[in-house]
Amino acid sequence: MKDIQLDENGRLRHLLTTEGLGRELLTEILDTAESFLPVTDQAVKKVPLLRGQTVVNLFFEASTRTRTTFELAAKRLSADVLNMQVAASATTKGETLLDTLETLQAMQVDMFVIRHQSSGAAHFFAQHAAPGVAVLNAGDGRHAHPTQALLDAFTLRRAKGDLTRLRVAIVGDILHSRVARSQIHALKDLGVPEIRVVAPRTLLPVDVETLGVQVSHDMRAGLDGVDVIIMLRLQRERMGGELLPTGEEYFQRYGLTPASLRADSPDGVIMRPGPINRGVEIDSQVAYGERSLILRQVTHGIAVRMAVMAMILGTRNANPEVHGERS
Amino acid sequence: MKDIQLDENGRLRHLLTTEGLGRELLTEILDTAESFLPVTDQAVKKVPLLRGQTVVNLFFEASTRTRTTFELAAKRLSADVLNMQVAASATTKGETLLDTLETLQAMQVDMFVIRHQSSGAAHFFAQHAAPGVAVLNAGDGRHAHPTQALLDAFTLRRAKGDLTRLRVAIVGDILHSRVARSQIHALKDLGVPEIRVVAPRTLLPVDVETLGVQVSHDMRAGLDGVDVIIMLRLQRERMGGELLPTGEEYFQRYGLTPASLRADSPDGVIMRPGPINRGVEIDSQVAYGERSLILRQVTHGIAVRMAVMAMILGTRNANPEVHGERS
Amino acid sequence: MKDIQLDENGRLRHLLTTEGLGRELLTEILDTAESFLPVTDQAVKKVPLLRGQTVVNLFFEASTRTRTTFELAAKRLSADVLNMQVAASATTKGETLLDTLETLQAMQVDMFVIRHQSSGAAHFFAQHAAPGVAVLNAGDGRHAHPTQALLDAFTLRRAKGDLTRLRVAIVGDILHSRVARSQIHALKDLGVPEIRVVAPRTLLPVDVETLGVQVSHDMRAGLDGVDVIIMLRLQRERMGGELLPTGEEYFQRYGLTPASLRADSPDGVIMRPGPINRGVEIDSQVAYGERSLILRQVTHGIAVRMAVMAMILGTRNANPEVHGERS
Repeated sequence: MKDIQLDENGRLRHLLTTEGLGRELLTEILDTAESFLPVTDQAVKKVPLLRGQTVVNLFFEASTRTRTTFELAAKRLSADVLNMQVAASATTKGETLLDTLETLQAMQVDMFVIRHQSSGAAHFFAQHAAPGVAVLNAGDGRHAHPTQALLDAFTLRRAKGDLTRLRVAIVGDILHSRVARSQIHALKDLGVPEIRVVAPRTLLPVDVETLGVQVSHDMRAGLDGVDVIIMLRLQRERMGGELLPTGEEYFQRYGLTPASLRADSPDGVIMRPGPINRGVEIDSQVAYGERSLILRQVTHGIAVRMAVMAMILGTRNANPEVHGERS
Repeated sequence: MKDIQLDENGRLRHLLTTEGLGRELLTEILDTAESFLPVTDQAVKKVPLLRGQTVVNLFFEASTRTRTTFELAAKRLSADVLNMQVAASATTKGETLLDTLETLQAMQVDMFVIRHQSSGAAHFFAQHAAPGVAVLNAGDGRHAHPTQALLDAFTLRRAKGDLTRLRVAIVGDILHSRVARSQIHALKDLGVPEIRVVAPRTLLPVDVETLGVQVSHDMRAGLDGVDVIIMLRLQRERMGGELLPTGEEYFQRYGLTPASLRADSPDGVIMRPGPINRGVEIDSQVAYGERSLILRQVTHGIAVRMAVMAMILGTRNANPEVHGERS
Repeated sequence: MKDIQLDENGRLRHLLTTEGLGRELLTEILDTAESFLPVTDQAVKKVPLLRGQTVVNLFFEASTRTRTTFELAAKRLSADVLNMQVAASATTKGETLLDTLETLQAMQVDMFVIRHQSSGAAHFFAQHAAPGVAVLNAGDGRHAHPTQALLDAFTLRRAKGDLTRLRVAIVGDILHSRVARSQIHALKDLGVPEIRVVAPRTLLPVDVETLGVQVSHDMRAGLDGVDVIIMLRLQRERMGGELLPTGEEYFQRYGLTPASLRADSPDGVIMRPGPINRGVEIDSQVAYGERSLILRQVTHGIAVRMAVMAMILGTRNANPEVHGERS
């Protein structure tokens, strides 16, 4: 894993997973994101760092919201952005995924932001990418969603300062969550000493303890004394089926409400990736309450994505010969 | 109404409706549009006024043509533009519309151009928008479509000079038309002394006279001596149903043809918002005839939208602290 | 044909077909493309030639890949690009195609890149375009696809140097191929002395010899001694129907495999427009083999499209009065 994400000088070349990045590089990403935060807060929200470079949003899974965050990040770095929504049916076989890659990189693209329903799709792209072409994983199957985990770590560091004393609870559908996996890898490497996963048995991977987390099936016990609660998104279509009771029952047991909040630390914070699912896993009052960091996560998401893009592509305009290697 | 559209200095902050804007501000918009008209006529059709600002086209109703006019206007002001087509089904409740707003403005967006099938959607956005975020209504339900009304007023002023002596007839589906409402408010405030609405009873609101217009159900009488004929678009799906006779019958009674044109003033002009509906409400010969202003309306639409965007956002690059208030 | 594509000084005004362009102008296009090739190979892949000009990709036929190549070319010339995907059903009649043209050019667009399922659509646009508006044909029905033919000629000239000694075989569905027609016209005008078409009778136009090509129904004979093999794309939906045997039978007779390759010249090259159709008309090994120019065609496609756009629009920023003629 580590090799393919880094170049021969140990610098970031692709971003596929938070696993194995290591504390130093993770910290460098967060520090770089810190430097981009003021950019998006000023009137001219633009720096010329990636001018004339081409970023392709290649989305095999539709997600307007996520695509938008990468598009904004790239545009605020002055890159040219191309959005391609590809029907997964058109590229079911590995070979044709390769054809897509080969064709697009023949157009002298600099970076692919790829989202795909199959775990490993981003690695496949990175393995076959030409020397000058970078891959940024925007979510692959149940595997990884590294920029989401990075923006969570960034938000947590800004809110809490020191990560090495925090107790974190991740609540919800751990089994299907690429976000949870990426969070656990990033937070552990950044020194978070205690991570708990809180979920019904049916929504936990069988070997979840091997990730170095504690397991709880009870919301009250799971949240007891934690400093951070991360609520995962729950797919409604999984409700009332084999894996789960009905929506109301689930919300009563694992929903985040003012009542369930009483268990955590009094200055505990609440985070949540992606769009809000009112009444499914989080109460509206809590979602926009004073302890919620949800909207700050969105703002930070742009800065973190800018940071990753800039770390990978940003040295090219200064050192054009790096890129010249390609053809 | 007035308060929310203006800032504490009486300057345009949002554009939601033409109602209550007042003659002075309406005139300022038209004058500003006048200054942008040469921009789109030169080879480099671009000014750097909104460089580094982000405009989001948030369309809950699909309309490629309308979206294009706002996209062009924003790009010609050098803004970064994001197009988001959102399925209305995804956001049926007011709360989730709020989630969309909160999430997008957390991405440090500067302006929403919003089109929505529900009357009041743009106001809802404006009421909940953060201090630095502006809302431009691109059509909400049957309520308002202010930029269309402004470009019509602009086109009329350019063609006729003095608006205070004109007799205007608006023909067609007044009942369902957000355009007609916005036109009536704008033209009355700009001093047009006589506005007639010409339509069958079934396509008129019951209290239409309260808008200060005269009502006619007969095309010949309605167009008698008018200087301006504005033809509204008629939805084909309403034809031959409860509200309307068949298409041919409607066209015979309310269609604009060389014959029905004989009633108006000899130098009368013809206008029409949006795409042409040949043979439904306007004869092709008339639509592209020498008295038609239809294509000029399209050209002016870009200038008017640039004017509104520039008036709302254009001072930020010069005074960055205005924007800094937000977070 | 010739007149409408050229202005009064014999310079390119529209690009609709390669037919009748003549060797001098074709060569000028290829030479201009040569000058753009280094642009896309450097870190800042952008020149300010079309800054402030507006290019509209108006696609009545969906084709993400093709649209992308034009979008990239225009963006690398610094133009503003608008993508419009139009349902063909919305504009079935010639009149409404005219409405689309009239409305969009009233928005002060500089160039339409148009793809349409009807032969002649691009010519129709060019005939009715305003003085300052250019039309670039991105494929119309079975008629023409000139930029594809030009990038093929460009790729061939780079690979082989002298075109006047080459034997070229075009293999596959000539009957439905706008690409084949455009290739034949371009290559003949550029001096290619021998062009063969290789296909079953059912996939050849009845009068194909009038194009100045030799006909073969046998792959081995058709490829005998050729320097260039161009494989056309075959629509799977035509397989196993009236025109064709099943896919396997077709591939056995007309597919390009290491075996069928033995007939051609030992330094023969292989080309193929558009996306790869593995196992339908070309073996994967051959497609990415050392004699394949397929990926170079993609790269050259951007440079050729930049060249055509720059030749048509590039003098405007220097001579703004040229454009001023319009309104």
